[in-house]
Amino acid sequence: MKKVYYNFLLLLVISLPIYAVKPLEQSALDTAAELRDKALKSDLAYQILESLTTEVGPRLAGSEGDVRAVAWAENKFTELKFDRVWKEPVTVTPWQRGVAAAEILKPFPQPLVISALGNSVGTPEEGIRAEIVHFATFADLQAAEAAEVKGKIVFISHKMAKTRDGSSYGRAVQARSQGAAVAGEKGAKAILIRSIGTDDDRLAHTGLMNYRENVNRIPAAALSSPDADLLLRQLQRGAVEVGLTMEASVAEPFTTYNVIGEIRGSERPDEVIIIGGHLDSWDLGTGAVDDGAGVAITMAAAKLIAEQQRPKRTIRVVLWAAEEVGLIGAKAYAEKYKAEMRQHITGAESDFGAGPIWSFDWRSAHDETPFIDQLAQLLAPLGIKKGHDKANGGPDLYPLRGLGMSTFALRQDGTDYFDLHHTANDTLDKVNPQHLQQNVAAYVVFAFAVANADGNFGFNLTY
Amino acid sequence: MKKVYYNFLLLLVISLPIYAVKPLEQSALDTAAELRDKALKSDLAYQILESLTTEVGPRLAGSEGDVRAVAWAENKFTELKFDRVWKEPVTVTPWQRGVAAAEILKPFPQPLVISALGNSVGTPEEGIRAEIVHFATFADLQAAEAAEVKGKIVFISHKMAKTRDGSSYGRAVQARSQGAAVAGEKGAKAILIRSIGTDDDRLAHTGLMNYRENVNRIPAAALSSPDADLLLRQLQRGAVEVGLTMEASVAEPFTTYNVIGEIRGSERPDEVIIIGGHLDSWDLGTGAVDDGAGVAITMAAAKLIAEQQRPKRTIRVVLWAAEEVGLIGAKAYAEKYKAEMRQHITGAESDFGAGPIWSFDWRSAHDETPFIDQLAQLLAPLGIKKGHDKANGGPDLYPLRGLGMSTFALRQDGTDYFDLHHTANDTLDKVNPQHLQQNVAAYVVFAFAVANADGNFGFNLTY
Repeated sequence: MKKVYYNFLLLLVISLPIYAVKPLEQSALDTAAELRDKALKSDLAYQILESLTTEVGPRLAGSEGDVRAVAWAENKFTELKFDRVWKEPVTVTPWQRGVAAAEILKPFPQPLVISALGNSVGTPEEGIRAEIVHFATFADLQAAEAAEVKGKIVFISHKMAKTRDGSSYGRAVQARSQGAAVAGEKGAKAILIRSIGTDDDRLAHTGLMNYRENVNRIPAAALSSPDADLLLRQLQRGAVEVGLTMEASVAEPFTTYNVIGEIRGSERPDEVIIIGGHLDSWDLGTGAVDDGAGVAITMAAAKLIAEQQRPKRTIRVVLWAAEEVGLIGAKAYAEKYKAEMRQHITGAESDFGAGPIWSFDWRSAHDETPFIDQLAQLLAPLGIKKGHDKANGGPDLYPLRGLGMSTFALRQDGTDYFDLHHTANDTLDKVNPQHLQQNVAAYVVFAFAVANADGNFGFNLTY
Repeated sequence: MKKVYYNFLLLLVISLPIYAVKPLEQSALDTAAELRDKALKSDLAYQILESLTTEVGPRLAGSEGDVRAVAWAENKFTELKFDRVWKEPVTVTPWQRGVAAAEILKPFPQPLVISALGNSVGTPEEGIRAEIVHFATFADLQAAEAAEVKGKIVFISHKMAKTRDGSSYGRAVQARSQGAAVAGEKGAKAILIRSIGTDDDRLAHTGLMNYRENVNRIPAAALSSPDADLLLRQLQRGAVEVGLTMEASVAEPFTTYNVIGEIRGSERPDEVIIIGGHLDSWDLGTGAVDDGAGVAITMAAAKLIAEQQRPKRTIRVVLWAAEEVGLIGAKAYAEKYKAEMRQHITGAESDFGAGPIWSFDWRSAHDETPFIDQLAQLLAPLGIKKGHDKANGGPDLYPLRGLGMSTFALRQDGTDYFDLHHTANDTLDKVNPQHLQQNVAAYVVFAFAVANADGNFGFNLTY
């Protein structure tokens, strides 16, 4: 009986509209609208991105570029007169690619364009030479008998589809992240996958792969999409033999940093809103789209707010370290601040390129309709519609969400994101300056609104 | 007086409409229309192109791929049951690229994506390290004082514009073909040019460059467009130092071949219509667009005609050797056949990619309005309009045109051609099968019509 009564009360609590976050006052709404319109005319984000891609460029975690990126970020926050600028150590094990080369040896010799996957081991110096065993999908590899695979080079040819929300990535990326472990377990000599991407450029997409304990570690590389097509066409003609040579090395553990800049709150400075992007990038491009754009958008947004009006709460811009190699910076941050989660009001990460934002999602313990509708009204002129209440946030917010923090998601159009993702083609010229402005406009509205709203989104949200 | 009289006569001859080529009879027009419609449903050209790019791939003149391409072409002509198949020797001096690497050393170290230009020398083993001297255009380099250039690495940043007819290429390509000679004469250590291309991919465009006698031979390479942008942005911040290492070698003279297949004429077999494309390609891509498409379109067109109705004149498909390295095959052919030019009635080369044909041009000593209008009517359903009477023909027809041969030009839409031209991105997936069919349809109409028309276009045309 007691339990029933308790459940009834709980139901009552859940079903009652508790607007924990009070609607913003008119003056705050006006300021948010002014900020939005100012952001649409500001080229600050583009300047920041131009600076990062020109003066730093590639910045794989633990590399010399990463060291320069950390220094760049501290300098940039300081130059932009953030109230507090600091960095927090994060330990990474730097992986370094060397030369990676592959060629079809039989039946029709042709060179193949490949890129080693991050974390992969290299081949013996003399290379590997073996017959190809082809699987259309990762699931087909999983289902294969070891006898089919043993002694061969596995090739997975599945091509990722284009989607606005990137929802096709999760399934496609299994071939990259788990392919080597599954192929290695069945006795393969190496694995080649079609790049996890949506373009047809002769550029391979790198990205993180993982081994499994007690499973033979085999070299793993991605083929450019045209090279995967070529391999398929030769396979239609019979057995194909491929030669593969890869160098790769891992250095001693290395200290890199989350770099953080704050605009301090005027009323509740200990309560923080987290925005940011990740500072590291893959080594092939200059990390313009992934994730220089996120860095630039969020730094610029906080700066524009500071220029306009100090927010009630603190806006903390976290430039996450070592995201690409396993959310290392995000995990370190979560570990460090886990006792202070109740002061982490909410947050959003920009890490899906530089396309225009088309929707926003949120997470709260309560029904926040009045506040969310205010946000929706402020964002509508930017072409952004109200989404759902199960915001995914960015990857670097996963550990914080796991600790119960509320998150928002300002969702970018990612239709072309995976054309460039993790390739040499990720360069400044791919970023549309107007889209960048639209992103900053959305971030100033979001950050200013949540920083100035009274009440909060709850904590220990059940996901 | 005699001269005046002669001139008057000449004027009269020129000004009178002499329809030297008789209009086609209705049955020939019907056959041409049938051929056109059949070609639009045929996937023969795509099959040929798929075979060439899959079974041969890169085929730089004098390379092992070139040897395989010659064998492939002979086999393919034979398999397609051409009446006569043969090859004619062409001597080339094979150039081989090795590794080419460049990086910005100061002020902000970053790697640069480059490609050695064809024919370039390499650097000393230890590389070259020098300051950049930047010129916006080739003309600016020409106008520069030697003192500005001496001891430096020249960088030309001019970007080629997109045009349907490729008319922007001529001016842009001077930086590639003549840049090293001009920079070398002024004492430069090396030259880097923005790729002669219209894309923004991180892939550099190779292509032929030439040295000048008695001028210091300096290494020459192309930067990808995003890398040229990066260099420009660093130059805005001050002096830039670049390191360049290039291997390149030239082998002993080598015999390759023009490969030729004929559909013999039923009435005047010794009179030939020349169609074709060039068999060689640059080494970075698989030569799908440049010029596998031309090879496939013209082989398929001749084959479809042979299947439908033997033409009155011979249709000779010439797959030109060593076009990319200086029209070597075309010059050898012209030398060999110079005494037989009057039997070379007219011709067209397909060497501008695989885009749809939108216009056709011609050259004749006479006004051929009735015949040209018939052609226009046959081609109109393909979206092809009548052009002008100063046809350029393809590059491999230049030597023949120089000997007085008439040429036609079936002009392809080349808007995107220079996105791919001479890059690793020149692969089969870039070819639209429907566009290929449209091209074949235009070639069957053209070749069948000129092969069956009575009369000819004149000779020793004054250009």
